[in-house]
Amino acid sequence: MLRVGMLTSGGDCQSLNATMRGVAKTLYNSGKDVEIIGFIEGYKGLMYNNYKVMKPGDFSGILTEGGTILGTSRQPFKLMRVPDAEGRDKVEEMKKTYARLKLDCLVVLGGNGSQKTSNLLSEEGLNVVGLPKTIDNDLWGTDMTFGFQSAVNIATNAIDCIHTTAASHGRVFIVEVMGHKVGWLTLHAGIAGGADIILLPEIPYDIEKVVKALEKRNKEGKRFSIIAVAEGAISKEDSELTKKELKKKNLNRVYPSVSYEIGAQIQEMTGQEVRVTVPGHMQRGGEPCAYDRVLSTRLGAAAANLILKKQFGYMVGLRDQDIVPVPLSEVAGKLKSVDPESSIIKEAKSLGICFGD
Amino acid sequence: MLRVGMLTSGGDCQSLNATMRGVAKTLYNSGKDVEIIGFIEGYKGLMYNNYKVMKPGDFSGILTEGGTILGTSRQPFKLMRVPDAEGRDKVEEMKKTYARLKLDCLVVLGGNGSQKTSNLLSEEGLNVVGLPKTIDNDLWGTDMTFGFQSAVNIATNAIDCIHTTAASHGRVFIVEVMGHKVGWLTLHAGIAGGADIILLPEIPYDIEKVVKALEKRNKEGKRFSIIAVAEGAISKEDSELTKKELKKKNLNRVYPSVSYEIGAQIQEMTGQEVRVTVPGHMQRGGEPCAYDRVLSTRLGAAAANLILKKQFGYMVGLRDQDIVPVPLSEVAGKLKSVDPESSIIKEAKSLGICFGD
Amino acid sequence: MLRVGMLTSGGDCQSLNATMRGVAKTLYNSGKDVEIIGFIEGYKGLMYNNYKVMKPGDFSGILTEGGTILGTSRQPFKLMRVPDAEGRDKVEEMKKTYARLKLDCLVVLGGNGSQKTSNLLSEEGLNVVGLPKTIDNDLWGTDMTFGFQSAVNIATNAIDCIHTTAASHGRVFIVEVMGHKVGWLTLHAGIAGGADIILLPEIPYDIEKVVKALEKRNKEGKRFSIIAVAEGAISKEDSELTKKELKKKNLNRVYPSVSYEIGAQIQEMTGQEVRVTVPGHMQRGGEPCAYDRVLSTRLGAAAANLILKKQFGYMVGLRDQDIVPVPLSEVAGKLKSVDPESSIIKEAKSLGICFGD
Amino acid sequence: MLRVGMLTSGGDCQSLNATMRGVAKTLYNSGKDVEIIGFIEGYKGLMYNNYKVMKPGDFSGILTEGGTILGTSRQPFKLMRVPDAEGRDKVEEMKKTYARLKLDCLVVLGGNGSQKTSNLLSEEGLNVVGLPKTIDNDLWGTDMTFGFQSAVNIATNAIDCIHTTAASHGRVFIVEVMGHKVGWLTLHAGIAGGADIILLPEIPYDIEKVVKALEKRNKEGKRFSIIAVAEGAISKEDSELTKKELKKKNLNRVYPSVSYEIGAQIQEMTGQEVRVTVPGHMQRGGEPCAYDRVLSTRLGAAAANLILKKQFGYMVGLRDQDIVPVPLSEVAGKLKSVDPESSIIKEAKSLGICFGD
Repeated sequence: MLRVGMLTSGGDCQSLNATMRGVAKTLYNSGKDVEIIGFIEGYKGLMYNNYKVMKPGDFSGILTEGGTILGTSRQPFKLMRVPDAEGRDKVEEMKKTYARLKLDCLVVLGGNGSQKTSNLLSEEGLNVVGLPKTIDNDLWGTDMTFGFQSAVNIATNAIDCIHTTAASHGRVFIVEVMGHKVGWLTLHAGIAGGADIILLPEIPYDIEKVVKALEKRNKEGKRFSIIAVAEGAISKEDSELTKKELKKKNLNRVYPSVSYEIGAQIQEMTGQEVRVTVPGHMQRGGEPCAYDRVLSTRLGAAAANLILKKQFGYMVGLRDQDIVPVPLSEVAGKLKSVDPESSIIKEAKSLGICFGD
Repeated sequence: MLRVGMLTSGGDCQSLNATMRGVAKTLYNSGKDVEIIGFIEGYKGLMYNNYKVMKPGDFSGILTEGGTILGTSRQPFKLMRVPDAEGRDKVEEMKKTYARLKLDCLVVLGGNGSQKTSNLLSEEGLNVVGLPKTIDNDLWGTDMTFGFQSAVNIATNAIDCIHTTAASHGRVFIVEVMGHKVGWLTLHAGIAGGADIILLPEIPYDIEKVVKALEKRNKEGKRFSIIAVAEGAISKEDSELTKKELKKKNLNRVYPSVSYEIGAQIQEMTGQEVRVTVPGHMQRGGEPCAYDRVLSTRLGAAAANLILKKQFGYMVGLRDQDIVPVPLSEVAGKLKSVDPESSIIKEAKSLGICFGD
Repeated sequence: MLRVGMLTSGGDCQSLNATMRGVAKTLYNSGKDVEIIGFIEGYKGLMYNNYKVMKPGDFSGILTEGGTILGTSRQPFKLMRVPDAEGRDKVEEMKKTYARLKLDCLVVLGGNGSQKTSNLLSEEGLNVVGLPKTIDNDLWGTDMTFGFQSAVNIATNAIDCIHTTAASHGRVFIVEVMGHKVGWLTLHAGIAGGADIILLPEIPYDIEKVVKALEKRNKEGKRFSIIAVAEGAISKEDSELTKKELKKKNLNRVYPSVSYEIGAQIQEMTGQEVRVTVPGHMQRGGEPCAYDRVLSTRLGAAAANLILKKQFGYMVGLRDQDIVPVPLSEVAGKLKSVDPESSIIKEAKSLGICFGD
Repeated sequence: MLRVGMLTSGGDCQSLNATMRGVAKTLYNSGKDVEIIGFIEGYKGLMYNNYKVMKPGDFSGILTEGGTILGTSRQPFKLMRVPDAEGRDKVEEMKKTYARLKLDCLVVLGGNGSQKTSNLLSEEGLNVVGLPKTIDNDLWGTDMTFGFQSAVNIATNAIDCIHTTAASHGRVFIVEVMGHKVGWLTLHAGIAGGADIILLPEIPYDIEKVVKALEKRNKEGKRFSIIAVAEGAISKEDSELTKKELKKKNLNRVYPSVSYEIGAQIQEMTGQEVRVTVPGHMQRGGEPCAYDRVLSTRLGAAAANLILKKQFGYMVGLRDQDIVPVPLSEVAGKLKSVDPESSIIKEAKSLGICFGD
């Protein structure tokens, strides 16, 4: 009997169920005697011994369903390599549950923080396999995370909708896209949606440059402009502050988010009417797109195959066209961000997209 | 030579182009010698003599395109039956353009305010035909306005996306839907999206009732709840204030919109985490849905047929299954709002949806 | 204890689950003690005593799911007002199951044939409530059936996809739309998709007129044409045959469907390349659209309210904006087809759409 | 003055316009004096001197539009390395047009056959840059062609629609997916749609194995099965025939396509009802998806940058995350097909998907 624990951790995304289905169908199809234990609401379930024994039928019909049938919650600790006392207690609780349920391994679907924890558990001796979940595409070790392309579709659709209304009214429209520290989602949705200006956390913007780009469009007779702004976009000025200085400055901010601040600045500097739209949590939800379903199914199957071969301590990732194992120790704590010198940024710039730098 | 002026007025919506195509194709197909003059940015174009002479090709391929190829702007005046001096000047300018271009009639695609103006122009002696445009579905004289069903689709999709993420995280989610004075859009999207609570301008809410409904769901073991809130939703308390008192109270409001206020109240009263999503202008944009394309094409054809029969002073509307002319004088200044005693509200209530009353 | 049987009969469609959810939620929400019995695969389940006792949870999360959680099958007999011996036996079996399960009533989601049967059962003394299911929109007694608008969306999307490829290649494209006896689906999808020619069962076509319409487009320099053809479209010639003569002629037909025959004729008569696309069963499947979800929820709630008031022998239908009960005896055996003299056909013709007559 | 010719060749696909926009915007944005000549209907336009001089405005608003604003046609010759007399004449005509218009280079958006021709023209001394267009994803030298992911979405959506109806009726459904020689589209849509059986040209199928897989599902109590079949799927038996033998056998085939033949065989061998759906040309049409828009924009920009750097004789392709130039001579005449031993096939098999081998 192979006993496999499974959990989904952190913010949800569109293809979690498809991925779990991939793992489960492959395990069940292996001919081995398999029992899958699903932990409720992520690491919490592992910590507090809250789980249910899954049946094959639980994984039927979920390929196209958004969300997660297991529920999820924020990952449990601001992880440090040497956890503090409270952190240690949590780890011990998780190890106890793992032992009590006689698990052969634990499958963790999670993003950056969650995979740091899965690496910690691996170092503590648990058999762990990780799966790269996030709409942010910021996980090191994989070309693509599942959830990303589905989120790109939603953010792009938001820009498409705004496009027609911006054109009809001749206004500047800002669409705020998710992504606190990385700009992948904004970059892809911005290009796909035909945004004129794209502002990313990785490329601090100069509001003067943004305004100049808008004025250039006006001069060319273009009646409207679309700006895709990442939640985590930052001005050049702010990017040069120390963490402490920035924190202090943020306390005095009056706008609900950076997009509103940028909008107000543009309105003041140009006199043009500016509107801000924030699709927000919509970007995590709804059905996974075909791309994500294929990726998730493949990743899930590959994770199951690692388990069947008793290869633990890896996350599976897409590299080139293949699914490959990547040591969790290499994944943990690294962020894959947009390189301002990368091919895609250069192409976008040569096309005339302004990044505010 | 039949000379037809055309303009789109007020907030844009998804099926304006499809409607204009319906008018134009029918006029061109009549065998008469027809020239269509498109005014740029709504009544502004009529006022400031800003227009372009349209060609049949201009109306090709626009059936599926959102926005308006003519551009639009807010309708020009807070309309009063007896316009003030400034208003009179504007009216005179519009009449002059109409005369200068030797128009046989003017086609106005617009919502409530815009059709009040078109009625005024009709009373001033212009030959006017109106077309019922609005995502709000609040025009008197038609069962359905074009734009409404497309907006319902987008707002419903927003709720669908939020649904999966709400379920995964076990949270209360508020989706704010467009509609300042009427709740049609929120009502339909709320029912279509399976919202548990729907708050409309027409049915002032009691926050205690809302909280009670949430607690009932918690007791039943449901981990999450969805609330669809119209932009113009109002509490019972506020609905009993005079206009003046309300204005004063609004000055002191700290939340960007009623949804955030409701969210904060719920969070405080229940301790549950609440998230607010505002799809905003997205609801006006993107492709018209099939329903709207059929409705718009029919309305456009019917408007053209009125013109060909020289029947002016009407808006065309859907009544039962037929497109019928409705005197502009009957349309002007009336609002079609949701009747709290209507069939649809009773059905929704019997299903268990809470309206906060 | 209120004991309610429920079944879905005939070809499936998109909003069956949403409708059953509407019935169930309203019954459960009534405060009465309710048990719902779901018959498996339509009338078969009632005949062969194949059912499951439903729980509230079974109706959770199915608002957006296509298909039917109960399964369906063709309705059991070519119904005659005076059933033959075999038919009588089936009826007796159904009555026995109904009695054995001590049902207070039976809810039937079905189209034309299925509602004839439900009327028969009603005449036999069972308490029946019907719900108007069909993508064909051909049920008498309701302005709209659920499933129709979802199917219109899919057929329209098919035409949209074909549109771009037709335009790129300058070809004639035929899209075959479902509907054997009635043309509602083809008519609506054809208008929504901007088809140049629409062929319906209700308006027999003259191939010469079709070819003339194509040639007119060619002369106007339009490089492509789209023809929406109902499965049941019929030539003038064939429409004048007796049933027997037509049957004989059909035996010798070489084409898989009328669209292919029309395509071959056009190709021969004009020399233009013609392509045929048949979206087929896709039109019944996938998620219900927002319109259908609202309609289904309302119809379901209204049906439940009839049950709670012990009013049986009705189908619920949409009339104007209200959901109203219609006696099953009035619904049974009538077909709601497209009137060639109706408002919508006249509008479409004035726009220039050719119906081949 | 930089004079750039551009054409789209072969079957159309969803992202042709987005790609041309990418090329054009980058060229116009370069600061150089650029004139773009668009050839009408592919190589035909180049051969017969049929073209239009493009303006920047022609490339506005086409990012989201399917089809091609230039029109397309089959590529002109069954290409051989040493063209015959007629072929030579065509080549000479194309060279004449190129010279007459004083082009600095020619941009060719096309698939396998079209890039063979573009390589030929390159060898003849023209400055050519190729862009990898095809829904088949079978072009050598790029990880992904534009059009592919959009087509995957449509084919997947077809399977999704069929899924609900298959489940409701308990039937076997076959969805025939495009792809004559390669199975990429069927493979991806099949996995994304949750197909139980996938039949590809690259993996000849044994009908007995297919039937066995269906029977296994029946035994497990699964009421329905979905089979994704590539247009070019071939039985083991047929795959062992010589070309001549196969041609002869094909002459006697009674079914319109391999899917219908497989359907008939299954129906005969198992007694189960089988339905076939053929989305057909829909798969080439409609809006490009976000993925394709990003890919197309990047490829277009990269192609323009090659032109600006006067690097000719290349196709641009996606390799890993970068857009790279690939010599046309390497691309020409090679087919990228699905490797039966590849990672993705192994993953799909381990999941339990049957490939009939």
